[in-house]
Amino acid sequence: MTLNRDARIGRSALLLLLSEEKEYQEDLISNTNWSFCEGKVGSMEAQKVVAAIETAAKNNHIIDKDLYREGHALYHAIIEALHGVTRGEVQLGSVLRTVGLTFAVLRGSPYENKAEGEWIAVALYGTIGAPVKGAEHETIGLGINHI
Amino acid sequence: MTLNRDARIGRSALLLLLSEEKEYQEDLISNTNWSFCEGKVGSMEAQKVVAAIETAAKNNHIIDKDLYREGHALYHAIIEALHGVTRGEVQLGSVLRTVGLTFAVLRGSPYENKAEGEWIAVALYGTIGAPVKGAEHETIGLGINHI
Amino acid sequence: MTLNRDARIGRSALLLLLSEEKEYQEDLISNTNWSFCEGKVGSMEAQKVVAAIETAAKNNHIIDKDLYREGHALYHAIIEALHGVTRGEVQLGSVLRTVGLTFAVLRGSPYENKAEGEWIAVALYGTIGAPVKGAEHETIGLGINHI
Amino acid sequence: MTLNRDARIGRSALLLLLSEEKEYQEDLISNTNWSFCEGKVGSMEAQKVVAAIETAAKNNHIIDKDLYREGHALYHAIIEALHGVTRGEVQLGSVLRTVGLTFAVLRGSPYENKAEGEWIAVALYGTIGAPVKGAEHETIGLGINHI
Amino acid sequence: MTLNRDARIGRSALLLLLSEEKEYQEDLISNTNWSFCEGKVGSMEAQKVVAAIETAAKNNHIIDKDLYREGHALYHAIIEALHGVTRGEVQLGSVLRTVGLTFAVLRGSPYENKAEGEWIAVALYGTIGAPVKGAEHETIGLGINHI
Amino acid sequence: MTLNRDARIGRSALLLLLSEEKEYQEDLISNTNWSFCEGKVGSMEAQKVVAAIETAAKNNHIIDKDLYREGHALYHAIIEALHGVTRGEVQLGSVLRTVGLTFAVLRGSPYENKAEGEWIAVALYGTIGAPVKGAEHETIGLGINHI
Ligand SMILES: [Mg+2]
Ligand SMILES: [Mg+2]
Ligand SMILES: [Mg+2]
Ligand SMILES: [Mg+2]
Ligand SMILES: [Mg+2]
Ligand SMILES: [Mg+2]
Repeated sequence: MTLNRDARIGRSALLLLLSEEKEYQEDLISNTNWSFCEGKVGSMEAQKVVAAIETAAKNNHIIDKDLYREGHALYHAIIEALHGVTRGEVQLGSVLRTVGLTFAVLRGSPYENKAEGEWIAVALYGTIGAPVKGAEHETIGLGINHI
Repeated sequence: MTLNRDARIGRSALLLLLSEEKEYQEDLISNTNWSFCEGKVGSMEAQKVVAAIETAAKNNHIIDKDLYREGHALYHAIIEALHGVTRGEVQLGSVLRTVGLTFAVLRGSPYENKAEGEWIAVALYGTIGAPVKGAEHETIGLGINHI
Repeated sequence: MTLNRDARIGRSALLLLLSEEKEYQEDLISNTNWSFCEGKVGSMEAQKVVAAIETAAKNNHIIDKDLYREGHALYHAIIEALHGVTRGEVQLGSVLRTVGLTFAVLRGSPYENKAEGEWIAVALYGTIGAPVKGAEHETIGLGINHI
Repeated sequence: MTLNRDARIGRSALLLLLSEEKEYQEDLISNTNWSFCEGKVGSMEAQKVVAAIETAAKNNHIIDKDLYREGHALYHAIIEALHGVTRGEVQLGSVLRTVGLTFAVLRGSPYENKAEGEWIAVALYGTIGAPVKGAEHETIGLGINHI
Repeated sequence: MTLNRDARIGRSALLLLLSEEKEYQEDLISNTNWSFCEGKVGSMEAQKVVAAIETAAKNNHIIDKDLYREGHALYHAIIEALHGVTRGEVQLGSVLRTVGLTFAVLRGSPYENKAEGEWIAVALYGTIGAPVKGAEHETIGLGINHI
Repeated sequence: MTLNRDARIGRSALLLLLSEEKEYQEDLISNTNWSFCEGKVGSMEAQKVVAAIETAAKNNHIIDKDLYREGHALYHAIIEALHGVTRGEVQLGSVLRTVGLTFAVLRGSPYENKAEGEWIAVALYGTIGAPVKGAEHETIGLGINHI
């Protein structure tokens, strides 16, 4: 059940966000049969971050919007990624902070054994801080789940 | 107090870990006056991860080992990064899981206003899972603190 | 201070919720001098779940509404039960999820030694999930406190 | 994607533990094609609880021991169930407490739509308290995951 | 059920620790019928902190060692106080930190209404930090429970 | 890097809140060159507690409102103090409870080695409980950070 070094979906999801050029994205499109989407969300409400990611993943057909099974896999991956972003309490406005995030959702097969099937990665990158322009620092999160 | 897009220490610390070639590292050395170090640690004990990062940062003079002030800044950045890695409880062996991580510690000045001074970023990338070869998935964490 | 196997208030509170017929409830009424109440609450707001249980327990005289001591015992039992329901963050709508719960509050004497006095059990059973019909799975929580 | 009232795997897993007679178990065997196992574990170390459940589930072929995908689903269900048991910190001996638990792992298809596939439920019931005979109260946990 | 300003057990428990002279302690002995004890504990293991407080409270007859009811009240007050000390994870050595604490356990009647009965306060004051002499800062915790 | 016993900023910040007379405050003003401020806040919303402390600290020039570095140090000290107050979830109204707090923010140099520089202490003392007059008990929190 070894992870395939050439198929690390978490690393790829994060590089989609950290790369400055579109090259990395085009590379993924050409060399894999993974599906992925990207987006942006800024909010003081954690539920809006969750909703933005879920909506993007459904609209871009990364998950089947009619299967709870897939929504459940995505939801837990999102919450895990938010732990990295919030580092303690999965709370934003209720502790007087806000985020400006880019996100990527990527669905692929990271294991050498085909029976391991598909997994989903949710990567978040951006800033977190006070609701005051510039009073913020970088933040990152990654959630991985079987789907 | 705006973040300088060309001086994002969190992004840089993570790219040090995600880049396959040494180019990114050399680039940082040439174009910034930041200090940074990298290392690896695998353990079922969270305290060994903390210790490995602290030791590397002190031995490479990223922080002054004789100033608690700097050790305190680093410690909280490490714990914040571990939140991203563990996503819920900052526990490894006590909930029967283990990590294999690469880490980078980077000290630099990410804000346009020089008065914002130096900050420290701790980035973690690797795998987390059962203490069984291959039963693991990727994980990422980032902690940022003023120093 | 051994627990009396025939007086397990946590098990009883949960069986009140899981039993399909009224038999279990009638059995409790006949064979014990415990007091208990049951109810339902569906919400995206955790405070409404807390309020519904507190109100039912007071209106049904499970606790004395004029004694903070008893309200305090109940409150902590409710929050402990919510930990089982939410499994990580005691949050609902703020992480975009909702619950549909039945609850039981039961007050009795579970220990063989009469000096151990009365204890309170709060049991929760129902579903948790996205605010979309059917996108949910079961969830359970139990809180126990001395009163 | 509605939950099938006659196929609530969480309720069934818990009733396996709470029922005094073997009738409930035999009923499940006759009327469903679900697989399940039961066991006991007492420990001050949370990792021993995790290990006991994982071992039982693998030895009884509830999950395929060679697929990380299934181990991952089970692991997260176990940790979620432990949240209900521990209600705050997923810690036992490190905060000077111990558990005596029965557990059930049940794999079945709880949704009316067959495409929702199989899910796994981990139920825990027993006592938690000080490492002193009788200084303990009841505790319950349930974790549910897609598999 | 108003708190009696002259009978604030939390404030008193903490002042026992923060006062430099024995005056405050003698004052409590003369003017109240509360029972209290004080002690010290230094450890990298949270369970040793819990054990030291429990032992002192039992040996000094603040709680009845034969009643689980009282041990349960004390235990939860200790864990609540440890939340203030640890501020995030109730962990010490497992995240490579250690504490040097003084503690006070105080049992009294803080409410004007006599029916509110007795309550217990656990106060902690000292330092937390790296297992290196001097690499530490102050920390405080308070837990309150009905008994 | 030893803590100076005569310069314990956490103890001082808390004594500012617990002392009944103004003497302690005047003493601090005469004998140290520390800066500090005090205030009150009552709310069911944690963000209002955070905002009240931040505003007081800025208006009283304890921190430089134009430096994110200082705001960041204060913010984390506030959140750490709130852990002591909330003991589990940094939530108030969302779990149906409210606080009435006094707070002190104190900036000073607690270490013998001058190179350790300035640190900030945030102390909180008051009551927490149900949104019902009198249904509350005492609570305390302390956060310390380098600045
Ligand atoms: Mg996982
Ligand atoms: Mg920060
Ligand atoms: Mg308990
Ligand atoms: Mg779930
Ligand atoms: Mg309380
Ligand atoms: Mg600290």
